[in-house]
Amino acid sequence: MLLELKEGTNYLDKQILIDRLENMGFRVVESDANILAVIGGVDSLVVTEAFSELPNVARVLPLTSNFKLASRQTKPSNTIIKVKDVAIGGEELFIIAGPCSIESREQLEACALVAKANGAQALRGGAYKPRTSPYEFQGLGVSGLELIAEVASKHGLLAVSEVMDASQIEIAAKYLDIIQIGARNMQNYALLTELGKIKTPVLLKRGFAATYHELLMAAEYIMLAGNPNVILCERGIRSIETYTRNTLDLNAIPALQELTHLPVIADPSHGTGVRSLVLPMARAAVAAGAHGILVEMHPDPDKSISDAKQTISFATFADLAKQVKNIKNALLL
Amino acid sequence: MLLELKEGTNYLDKQILIDRLENMGFRVVESDANILAVIGGVDSLVVTEAFSELPNVARVLPLTSNFKLASRQTKPSNTIIKVKDVAIGGEELFIIAGPCSIESREQLEACALVAKANGAQALRGGAYKPRTSPYEFQGLGVSGLELIAEVASKHGLLAVSEVMDASQIEIAAKYLDIIQIGARNMQNYALLTELGKIKTPVLLKRGFAATYHELLMAAEYIMLAGNPNVILCERGIRSIETYTRNTLDLNAIPALQELTHLPVIADPSHGTGVRSLVLPMARAAVAAGAHGILVEMHPDPDKSISDAKQTISFATFADLAKQVKNIKNALLL
Amino acid sequence: MLLELKEGTNYLDKQILIDRLENMGFRVVESDANILAVIGGVDSLVVTEAFSELPNVARVLPLTSNFKLASRQTKPSNTIIKVKDVAIGGEELFIIAGPCSIESREQLEACALVAKANGAQALRGGAYKPRTSPYEFQGLGVSGLELIAEVASKHGLLAVSEVMDASQIEIAAKYLDIIQIGARNMQNYALLTELGKIKTPVLLKRGFAATYHELLMAAEYIMLAGNPNVILCERGIRSIETYTRNTLDLNAIPALQELTHLPVIADPSHGTGVRSLVLPMARAAVAAGAHGILVEMHPDPDKSISDAKQTISFATFADLAKQVKNIKNALLL
Amino acid sequence: MLLELKEGTNYLDKQILIDRLENMGFRVVESDANILAVIGGVDSLVVTEAFSELPNVARVLPLTSNFKLASRQTKPSNTIIKVKDVAIGGEELFIIAGPCSIESREQLEACALVAKANGAQALRGGAYKPRTSPYEFQGLGVSGLELIAEVASKHGLLAVSEVMDASQIEIAAKYLDIIQIGARNMQNYALLTELGKIKTPVLLKRGFAATYHELLMAAEYIMLAGNPNVILCERGIRSIETYTRNTLDLNAIPALQELTHLPVIADPSHGTGVRSLVLPMARAAVAAGAHGILVEMHPDPDKSISDAKQTISFATFADLAKQVKNIKNALLL
Repeated sequence: MLLELKEGTNYLDKQILIDRLENMGFRVVESDANILAVIGGVDSLVVTEAFSELPNVARVLPLTSNFKLASRQTKPSNTIIKVKDVAIGGEELFIIAGPCSIESREQLEACALVAKANGAQALRGGAYKPRTSPYEFQGLGVSGLELIAEVASKHGLLAVSEVMDASQIEIAAKYLDIIQIGARNMQNYALLTELGKIKTPVLLKRGFAATYHELLMAAEYIMLAGNPNVILCERGIRSIETYTRNTLDLNAIPALQELTHLPVIADPSHGTGVRSLVLPMARAAVAAGAHGILVEMHPDPDKSISDAKQTISFATFADLAKQVKNIKNALLL
Repeated sequence: MLLELKEGTNYLDKQILIDRLENMGFRVVESDANILAVIGGVDSLVVTEAFSELPNVARVLPLTSNFKLASRQTKPSNTIIKVKDVAIGGEELFIIAGPCSIESREQLEACALVAKANGAQALRGGAYKPRTSPYEFQGLGVSGLELIAEVASKHGLLAVSEVMDASQIEIAAKYLDIIQIGARNMQNYALLTELGKIKTPVLLKRGFAATYHELLMAAEYIMLAGNPNVILCERGIRSIETYTRNTLDLNAIPALQELTHLPVIADPSHGTGVRSLVLPMARAAVAAGAHGILVEMHPDPDKSISDAKQTISFATFADLAKQVKNIKNALLL
Repeated sequence: MLLELKEGTNYLDKQILIDRLENMGFRVVESDANILAVIGGVDSLVVTEAFSELPNVARVLPLTSNFKLASRQTKPSNTIIKVKDVAIGGEELFIIAGPCSIESREQLEACALVAKANGAQALRGGAYKPRTSPYEFQGLGVSGLELIAEVASKHGLLAVSEVMDASQIEIAAKYLDIIQIGARNMQNYALLTELGKIKTPVLLKRGFAATYHELLMAAEYIMLAGNPNVILCERGIRSIETYTRNTLDLNAIPALQELTHLPVIADPSHGTGVRSLVLPMARAAVAAGAHGILVEMHPDPDKSISDAKQTISFATFADLAKQVKNIKNALLL
Repeated sequence: MLLELKEGTNYLDKQILIDRLENMGFRVVESDANILAVIGGVDSLVVTEAFSELPNVARVLPLTSNFKLASRQTKPSNTIIKVKDVAIGGEELFIIAGPCSIESREQLEACALVAKANGAQALRGGAYKPRTSPYEFQGLGVSGLELIAEVASKHGLLAVSEVMDASQIEIAAKYLDIIQIGARNMQNYALLTELGKIKTPVLLKRGFAATYHELLMAAEYIMLAGNPNVILCERGIRSIETYTRNTLDLNAIPALQELTHLPVIADPSHGTGVRSLVLPMARAAVAAGAHGILVEMHPDPDKSISDAKQTISFATFADLAKQVKNIKNALLL
């Protein structure tokens, strides 16, 4: 439920109220305005009206969404996640670029150089790769994490990579600025709960057949466990179309932004699975209002060890970066 | 198959060759360059190599797509469909706006005024409505067609409306500038074949579970029957998401443009089914490269007799028209 | 709404009441028990309570489903459609078998012989073929209808074939015992309405992305237009699976039987698109409670002019017919 | 690749060949017949023809599926998994029944009694529950595992329950006869690999948008890591239908049996999500050839703490058990 405080309630009185609620066993989140969100699965067990008798409470409002901490109802203003000097979720477009898999220092250096030169703020690269087949390249593991941390830092970029299991979180948090959770693990609740115990921002990708609601509930798992820094990422869903690998669902961008205050970005590389579609769909994502985009590029796309079909060249990335900025500027006219 | 003519083949020799092929029973389409496309289901029955012995033929190339007339292989340059003074498929953005159903002269007049004032070129409105339930409003029929023809003409707009059966084509062709075929009839082959017998441009909507290939084969039915003026329209597919009515698949825009020379537009109204998503998704469609958009608006959206949930107000339409033009301009930078 | 009549209301009083309601502009359907269903889109316009004051009306009950004539609420007992000496929808399993396309008298004769010998009651074969490509075989047309009528009659089988357009109904009704509407035309409302004007039973196939509700609304179009003889057919939906052509949704069998009194059959040939799966899925359909099955067979399946991949041999059909009867018998234990 | 041995190759020569191959770094699996499967991601790196020169090798055959250990090509005969006195994958129908969540000893005892009395061989019950919302009941954890182990053992039933994270495997393997992996974790590769390190049979549920191929690749992860005891379970996929919670895809039963030698069972409870559909779909699954079924039941279904809508009563379960056995017997006629 949401508690609207009386006008003029001062900082101290607010803290006293929060303490009291927490002593009663509730989790309390301060919302933008003079509103406290009281969380904890208690909605069906307590008489919400009784809360109106607490000091300084003007009104008790129901919290109607199942996701509470992630809901825009709880926090009307956009959440801006600050990582080093980068602000994610605000006016500046957040661009993550890099190879699908980390293959070598040379490959990663080349990508970092191009990423930085074209205005990207983050370098991505897979160290642990979720592969459909156990016979395919599974990633460089920890040495990949070390490499991306070093190369990203050298070029003034944030390091972004995926973890697939709770056992990888500790080491990943040491090396990465943002930890990615892939589509296949979106409902790996044990992993989500562990991510809630650190503060490193989590880039949470939508499962390829997950609804918006389920994506938000997955974010809620992380937030409820203690980590408020969740970035949502639309990366395409399975549909009846076979020309593309996935169907990038851009409806998700404005729809999620209605439902949540968290940053929402798009991945047109996985979202299409087709190299020639990455650039136009990156533009479309930004036009739909995405706070950022994530794209896969490679010095020699055809030789990419994974996802070659959807990986773009450096030249295409330079075009893409320029065009998405033009679109972003057009939104301000 | 495609016949590449020898350099310097003159107009007369080309005509002689075309006549000869047609006398052999083939359908011949002149492609942009010095290329003739030979069509007719004959590919598996004739020895294509033998055609290289015809006069002025330099090379015989296979026509690899199943859709032939609609294929960009057959005709590399974009088809621009001219209707009165409007060119569809070229540089200018084509905007169709109007109510879901034609309800009254007043309603339609109000829409036409707003459409024109904001730069739309066409007025839409349903006279025959495909309704899931036989108990729902089925449209005004012929009187609706008369009304939209009159109002559109008065305001210098093209008239666009849907037909659902071959028996409605003759009267529709009399009143309309563009005939729409709805998603449910995309594979109504009897209807498609009849539309091939007129020259009125056809706005062909993608079925809600049809692949790009099937949409192009449906266009092929119309083209093979004699009508080359087909405009394709992405209008959302069914997916596992339930927050939106449909999932507007913007991958379709650049993907179809790779496959075909026909104009490709998007319908963010049906494609989302949610009023608040129409504007951002219209922007996204244009950013993806759509040649135009189709949107439903109403003087009083909540009172719209059909599809009220996805119908936008005049004020929103004015914003939308301005914003999509800003996006279109950004594509030219 | 449903009117429950007072106990002991006699035939004459009931007729008087029906006449009175019809004179008021309503459509009235007699339900099994002492119940009249009052249909006609009037539910939102009339005060239903007022009907309780009519003579012999004991109670007024709401009709909660959107499909009214097709609803089991309106008619609790199963509808059994009698065609010649065959009863469809009752205890006896209804088996339709034959080639995808009618190719020749020899082919059809061979199929009829095998169908009859193995206990099938109906012979199917396509005369008008809905093909994705205009370059593919489109069927023999009227001469195909003549052929199937003659061959079916000779072997004591019902003739079943598809129509694709209202213009084909008159001739089809002359030759066929059951008219099939294919998945692509399930929401061709003009066609459905025309089928309502005849009495020939209609085999209505579920669209490949249609919900149960939409299938029942399509049946409602036919029934409301005057033809109560509708047989529903589950034939597979599109899903993310690509190993099969379609995903036969057997949930549909018991689910539809909850919702409607109409007969429900299954087509494991289109529902799988894979020859080896037809037999086990035919068994499964019957075990799920289907009133019948429709299967495609051919004297030489690999040479079938259409749908060869899903067409079974005569030997497999003989096995299938035996096995589905064993399953049907097991349901009675 | 597959090595077909020369006729008459004796046991010793075969072992010498296997040792030699293993010393070369390959993994070797003995297939039914005189065939060795050589596994290990080596296919693209070695010249397969060279293997024909090894002693006793008659022919080298390509292994065409991506899943190797799970492929029926590698092992043509059905795998029968023996757990205590139960054989899974053979002629006897394997029935798993029990509550969705373990709630109390009384509840579990009641279920065990009914399960045993009606011929089920295994008792299921969730101790760790994957819930979409973090605010919902998450299961009793280890004490739930202790309870089900004790109650199952007392009644001569196998204990089946789900784990969600690698950290739960050790304790689960101590208490359970079969470890279930849920649909959301089907592609949790870290978890699958850990399950490969134990020998407890794994009941692997198909992801709700996973293809057959992906399910088999997930099984391959477990098998390649060392655990050959994998039971596949179809439990419904997401489709456009909303009347049911999921669409039980029974095509999967015969299709998977073509592709793999592993046992394949079906879960009509999750596969429908609708109580009234569980019984007919259980029959259909057995008629399609399933080696077993898994159903959720509860002493008081409406009070079930989770999945109440799809949970059947004891009386319905008794009917179901009887009817599926009748169907199973009908398959032998």
